[in-house]
Amino acid sequence: MPTITIEGPPIDVKKKRELVKKVTGIAVNIYKIEHITVLIKENPPENVGVDGQLLLDRKKLAKQKG
Amino acid sequence: MPTITIEGPPIDVKKKRELVKKVTGIAVNIYKIEHITVLIKENPPENVGVDGQLLLDRKKLAKQKG
Amino acid sequence: MPTITIEGPPIDVKKKRELVKKVTGIAVNIYKIEHITVLIKENPPENVGVDGQLLLDRKKLAKQKG
Amino acid sequence: MPTITIEGPPIDVKKKRELVKKVTGIAVNIYKIEHITVLIKENPPENVGVDGQLLLDRKKLAKQKG
Amino acid sequence: MPTITIEGPPIDVKKKRELVKKVTGIAVNIYKIEHITVLIKENPPENVGVDGQLLLDRKKLAKQKG
Amino acid sequence: MPTITIEGPPIDVKKKRELVKKVTGIAVNIYKIEHITVLIKENPPENVGVDGQLLLDRKKLAKQKG
Repeated sequence: MPTITIEGPPIDVKKKRELVKKVTGIAVNIYKIEHITVLIKENPPENVGVDGQLLLDRKKLAKQKG
Repeated sequence: MPTITIEGPPIDVKKKRELVKKVTGIAVNIYKIEHITVLIKENPPENVGVDGQLLLDRKKLAKQKG
Repeated sequence: MPTITIEGPPIDVKKKRELVKKVTGIAVNIYKIEHITVLIKENPPENVGVDGQLLLDRKKLAKQKG
Repeated sequence: MPTITIEGPPIDVKKKRELVKKVTGIAVNIYKIEHITVLIKENPPENVGVDGQLLLDRKKLAKQKG
Repeated sequence: MPTITIEGPPIDVKKKRELVKKVTGIAVNIYKIEHITVLIKENPPENVGVDGQLLLDRKKLAKQKG
Repeated sequence: MPTITIEGPPIDVKKKRELVKKVTGIAVNIYKIEHITVLIKENPPENVGVDGQLLLDRKKLAKQKG
């Protein structure tokens, strides 16, 4: 502990590496505790709803409008 | 916020769409807050235990009895 | 399972009762599974950050602008 | 990691101590990893819904019947 | 409820079966409640950070040193 | 989304403000998404187990040794 869980869209390994490094650095500074675990959760756009709509559908709509 | 996480078995996109729409509608009514995020988590039957038994094994047993 | 976790601000018991009843109804319809658990998590405004700012501070600012 | 989160009703410290000790022992055996974190979350009966009903209300009903 | 979520690395079905059985046994003893749900979450090494470093990178480093 | 949940010990409001601001800044940079929610969860030392022991007991032992 602390354990930090990040629920977001899929990202590449490079970004995961940066995310873990930077978020851990902040947490160590604030909590003054060394052992930080970070869990990155990647959610496909058909499994996330924002304001009542799947991200999948919002993206399709955005493309059609685009 | 609010953020609603639903841990269940796999479902198809049509059901996800309906789930997100309806659950968000209720949450908006009760919390009087617009920005609702819903995360649908799909768990394979070998990763869920109910009453000490994997869902995977319960299904097999049910079939044998069936 | 399914287990539904709702992270939101504090609400009164009447709203909790309504929230649990309605969200469960939807989940039963979609998943065709009877045993639904709902966990309502109440977060004080100083423990929630939106767009980089504590809800506590956003509320104070909104009042000042009021 | 592993991190184990237990969502349940309130329990006393003695039970928490036993829960943490025993669950960690099992996890170490299975995962062959030493660093196990256990988070015990205590949920008041008005924040938990089972089959569409708050635990708070189920308990009241059970008492009336009892 | 109780619902127990275990965030760890991938494991095989045999271990999942054992994990669910044993953890449930303990929880039933301590909570004196029958209905226990266990969710096993498997995290790939590129999605977990420990002490600021992805597990993926720690494993590579360990191999090089090995 | 993204939603970031931080499970740690209790901290004061000043630290919460800093934590939310900095973690959100990093997440915006990496995900290129504006709407970030951060949930800070404060766990009392009797509800957290590390390596099979409650934090409560580890602190007591450390004091006795200290």
